[in-house]
Amino acid sequence: MGIEDSIRTYGAKIDDMLRELIPVDEKNYLSEPIWYHMNTKGKRVRPAICLITCEALGGNPENALSFALAIEVLHNMFLMHDDIEDGDTVRRDQPTVWVKYGTANAINAGDYLLACAYKSTLASPVAPEKRLKLLEALTLTYGKTVEGQALDINARAAESFTVAAYMKMVELKTGYYLACGMVGGAIVAGASNEVVEKIWMLGKNMGPAFQIRDDLIDLTHGKGRGGVIGSDIKEGKASFLYSYVLQIASGEQKKKLREIMLKPREETTADDIEWVLDVYRRYDAMKYAQDYAENLVQQAYKTINEIPVDDKTIFKEIASFMAQRMS
Amino acid sequence: MGIEDSIRTYGAKIDDMLRELIPVDEKNYLSEPIWYHMNTKGKRVRPAICLITCEALGGNPENALSFALAIEVLHNMFLMHDDIEDGDTVRRDQPTVWVKYGTANAINAGDYLLACAYKSTLASPVAPEKRLKLLEALTLTYGKTVEGQALDINARAAESFTVAAYMKMVELKTGYYLACGMVGGAIVAGASNEVVEKIWMLGKNMGPAFQIRDDLIDLTHGKGRGGVIGSDIKEGKASFLYSYVLQIASGEQKKKLREIMLKPREETTADDIEWVLDVYRRYDAMKYAQDYAENLVQQAYKTINEIPVDDKTIFKEIASFMAQRMS
Repeated sequence: MGIEDSIRTYGAKIDDMLRELIPVDEKNYLSEPIWYHMNTKGKRVRPAICLITCEALGGNPENALSFALAIEVLHNMFLMHDDIEDGDTVRRDQPTVWVKYGTANAINAGDYLLACAYKSTLASPVAPEKRLKLLEALTLTYGKTVEGQALDINARAAESFTVAAYMKMVELKTGYYLACGMVGGAIVAGASNEVVEKIWMLGKNMGPAFQIRDDLIDLTHGKGRGGVIGSDIKEGKASFLYSYVLQIASGEQKKKLREIMLKPREETTADDIEWVLDVYRRYDAMKYAQDYAENLVQQAYKTINEIPVDDKTIFKEIASFMAQRMS
Repeated sequence: MGIEDSIRTYGAKIDDMLRELIPVDEKNYLSEPIWYHMNTKGKRVRPAICLITCEALGGNPENALSFALAIEVLHNMFLMHDDIEDGDTVRRDQPTVWVKYGTANAINAGDYLLACAYKSTLASPVAPEKRLKLLEALTLTYGKTVEGQALDINARAAESFTVAAYMKMVELKTGYYLACGMVGGAIVAGASNEVVEKIWMLGKNMGPAFQIRDDLIDLTHGKGRGGVIGSDIKEGKASFLYSYVLQIASGEQKKKLREIMLKPREETTADDIEWVLDVYRRYDAMKYAQDYAENLVQQAYKTINEIPVDDKTIFKEIASFMAQRMS
């Protein structure tokens, strides 16, 4: 089954399981903000990737459903806490949970989602040893992503921020997260530790590659509504471009780059953005970023070829699907 | 070994394990706020209770150390998030983590502590089935405590707040939490599910009993520095007394009680506090609370007698120790 088919087939099932795990109850202080947030979401791509990996490696995807659900729940937990941490007030044209229900309820609802992710993983209908491996994968992903978020939160205020620091941050923040669904599917299918290790490695190649492309899209097509260019600059986001240029710019330029980065978003002017873009262009940073991401994608395909399974098609399909969709 | 001895014996060991789990690193965005917070703490009572239970039930407390550590870490995670949610700016005479490091870092550091609690539990040197039971106990405790916190956060704004609502809140928020260390010790010792179920029940008796006593202490001796009476009223905390009186007070009194409850703490006057105390006295709420707590303590001892183990001494010791120390 292809990824698109898998999303269609399993999407409704995951939604049913979600409603069982966290019953919809408008009078409940946890359920209400959680479902307010969940309803803004859609495709359940992450669960599908878990299930399709399990199937392709010869496992029964039914047995991976609980873990697939856990990944979806973990994803929403991160969105909820990150929105508070980043001060984001709007998600998919709706006020974010902390804006609508207050910071206290948003922190606590996120905490509850995490408990649900563990609850769902603990309910996986697989042998104890496999269940423990799933719990280890969930914990590794959760902990590493939080480590990455710590670097991200503090990157904009950092005195120096290098490409190495950027790579460390995005490997932690996006790499494990991206691989986790595939890892879970592989564990349920009974894949060896060597397979699992290679999938984690694949995440470390692909996560940063997609993040760098995401950073580039912000400068070429715009990420926000109406294709506004440079919203990362406005928000003071520590992008790949920023890390690269900060390494090679003049002292004067560095100073101004940091100043613009540290400005509250509403004080960042169109001139500021244009100035930053101009510096990026001068140092040919877009080209450098493109090449860097391309190199990571090549590494990803190399890693896929090293995964010790007979048919590697599924990993190639997922990589190409993600390249199109998850950026 | 008695509880005091156990704290002395294991306290240093737990501290060493903590430093291994979360290495002290002042330049790390997670380690720094976590250790800033941890250093305000002391006795490691919770781990000791886990270890002493394990030993008393015939287990090897060495095998319970990882879980004991997890409980201590979970405890600190809750303190960190609760301080943000409750808007508390000072803990043990120091600015709270969110005040010192910002809300974003405090949320994220709390999230990281939770990952560490799971990491430590996963490292428990026991058979897979037991490890899964420990993970289930941790997840149950974590999820239920968060449910209780959701009720607590929203109680002060609730139109009606009854003794039943108070009991539900504190059973969730304090009951599992209080039992979890004992449960973990029992699991490692190989206790039956019946034993574990009774210990959870014990938590549901003892948690609310101690919380009600805590609510009373605020009105008789004061909890804050210098024995100031009525800080719960000032902070708008939904106490047992409040829930009881709200059920039986006149419409006029209810209205004013809620108004005072909803006032920001800096706007609550000494007259407000005196007025509330006067209403509590009129309805003999302190006596009612004392009797209610006493009844719960009796239930706790009844539950202890029902725990299907030969020697129940340890549970009686823990109950009496907690009654003196953990309120």
